[in-house]
Amino acid sequence: MNEHIQPVPLEKAYRLLNHGPTVLVSARHEGVENVMAAAWACALDFAPPKLTVVLDKSTRTRLLVEGSGEFVIQLPTVRQLRLTHEVGNRSLHAEPDKLERAGVSLIRMDGVDAPFVEGCSAWLACRLIPEPHNQQAYDLFIGEVTGAWADARVFRDGHWHFESADPAWRSIHHIAGGHFYTIGEPVSAAGPREEA
Amino acid sequence: MNEHIQPVPLEKAYRLLNHGPTVLVSARHEGVENVMAAAWACALDFAPPKLTVVLDKSTRTRLLVEGSGEFVIQLPTVRQLRLTHEVGNRSLHAEPDKLERAGVSLIRMDGVDAPFVEGCSAWLACRLIPEPHNQQAYDLFIGEVTGAWADARVFRDGHWHFESADPAWRSIHHIAGGHFYTIGEPVSAAGPREEA
Repeated sequence: MNEHIQPVPLEKAYRLLNHGPTVLVSARHEGVENVMAAAWACALDFAPPKLTVVLDKSTRTRLLVEGSGEFVIQLPTVRQLRLTHEVGNRSLHAEPDKLERAGVSLIRMDGVDAPFVEGCSAWLACRLIPEPHNQQAYDLFIGEVTGAWADARVFRDGHWHFESADPAWRSIHHIAGGHFYTIGEPVSAAGPREEA
Repeated sequence: MNEHIQPVPLEKAYRLLNHGPTVLVSARHEGVENVMAAAWACALDFAPPKLTVVLDKSTRTRLLVEGSGEFVIQLPTVRQLRLTHEVGNRSLHAEPDKLERAGVSLIRMDGVDAPFVEGCSAWLACRLIPEPHNQQAYDLFIGEVTGAWADARVFRDGHWHFESADPAWRSIHHIAGGHFYTIGEPVSAAGPREEA
């Protein structure tokens, strides 16, 4: 773990996901690790922080989440655009060396069994809240966030700093095919007494 | 309805929401209309298109959605930043003239009873899929998209054109308080054969 990766207080964890970035979902079960891309991840609650993520029945990662009851949601950056596209389009079923081909390096965080993708801007370790009807009918999974971390070069003191960080740190927001938008510039609707 | 508002084919409706914008939720029931802001809305399925949205128990809009079984999810633009912040912070319970104060104008679309907020970039008319456990336990609502429209000045031919449209059309992505980011620039991970 490099020196830039800092814990984020759980009560501010929702801010890592609030702007709707495309994420990577990682999990490990019985010695198998996988990473997939997901545009359909969303905050669900503040305290304890929860989130939703849609995991298609065709994905190996879904089996690992169901088997282990744990997963990590992390935010890839512009620098990881091709990696994100590759893990979203290659299958561990068909390509056992998928992660290597996609250029994914996995790292560990203390107290979490699921693997973390190196080089992301933020990570949310989650415990699956089993909801069999949602999972079967909608491919919809709910996680409680048990730990959060961010790279202090782009998120620190509870705030994103996209506008002052290297542009390669910006989050990416998938539209369709290989097409994404980066996050843009800050705008504020806050009056002077509302500044957070 | 102005000439720029064009229907979006249902199979491409997910693209309106895929990049994770903050949305406005509108509904009407028994003559009462309301609009609220929601950062926690997310695509859920392609065909038929579905989405999730989190509606807190304190909101009047939630009662209208539960009562009518219908709602509209729409994307406010940079031009509507203050409007978005206002409808997200004023309550119809406390201020019967909330919509007027926030500068909201409502328009109608053929075949949909729920009201649409004028000036947005895109609209998704939804039928509530009742899931009482999700609604009670998580404030999580599921809608099936029954119609979609976009302003052709920023979304046409199935694609966003944020980069060539007036910057005032960009989507806004809430972080916390009155702080948002706009959507940024396009980036592509697609090979030449993957162009959509």
